[in-house]
Amino acid sequence: MRPAPRFFEDFQVGLRFRSPHEIPVTAERIKAFAAEFDPQPFHLDDGAGAGAFFAGLTASGWHTAAVAMRLIVDSDLGLDGRGAGVAAESMRWPRPVRPGDSLRVEGMVTETRPSRSRADRGIVKFQATAYNQRNEAVLEATHVVMALRRGAAPGCR
Amino acid sequence: MRPAPRFFEDFQVGLRFRSPHEIPVTAERIKAFAAEFDPQPFHLDDGAGAGAFFAGLTASGWHTAAVAMRLIVDSDLGLDGRGAGVAAESMRWPRPVRPGDSLRVEGMVTETRPSRSRADRGIVKFQATAYNQRNEAVLEATHVVMALRRGAAPGCR
Repeated sequence: MRPAPRFFEDFQVGLRFRSPHEIPVTAERIKAFAAEFDPQPFHLDDGAGAGAFFAGLTASGWHTAAVAMRLIVDSDLGLDGRGAGVAAESMRWPRPVRPGDSLRVEGMVTETRPSRSRADRGIVKFQATAYNQRNEAVLEATHVVMALRRGAAPGCR
Repeated sequence: MRPAPRFFEDFQVGLRFRSPHEIPVTAERIKAFAAEFDPQPFHLDDGAGAGAFFAGLTASGWHTAAVAMRLIVDSDLGLDGRGAGVAAESMRWPRPVRPGDSLRVEGMVTETRPSRSRADRGIVKFQATAYNQRNEAVLEATHVVMALRRGAAPGCR
């Protein structure tokens, strides 16, 4: 389902990608993620009033970010194994993810440039937005990835 | 161990916080996280050469971000349940996290301002850096949190 991994030279500004499927976010997974990584009341308990901020259970924003990463890896961006994230700019969670939501991702490459410090690598920036089943954005971010150039030796670094 | 959750008014610029403990990152957890959220070779396999980018197993950057969130929640920042992340600015992963690394977080509140749209809330920005056991930064980020003002009704939104 995934395309062959791209080298730096294969990423072009304007290249669009999308996830080939949706990932459902269940109450069980929301609570399990939160118990390990973000144990705040509104990520752990269904009970109204348990949290002071949200009414009802919501996914940790880091859970949403992790699901979005899975959707990006599964997409036709072709990131698999030849690029590594070095930064993320302006991540925004415009609305919470709730149990039963189903997420997908769409995005576009916005910038590419050779690395100034490593001749065998280049920088690729892409914008990615995760949407719920109502096509409401739940996460927007710009990812900055260091990608290998064609001919770079594997296993470097 | 955690302090009482703070309201917006309790956050002041210059407030410093730190995690009360370290969280070890094991090969088992790196692979389990990656299998669910970031299934790229260098996050799944110990074997050298399995990945084209890193030599050896490294944690997904989103795993590192999730562990950092846990350390922030456990810290004396006092975020628990009265603030919700709305954005993250300039996240950087200066170096990878590897099996056996043990992470801690230090940070500081850098900005506070009342919300323009919600009278019962305010914006708190804090910078947080995750360090490994060699005091090398592995994640730097500025978090933007919407916090309840004192007297705000619980369960709103």
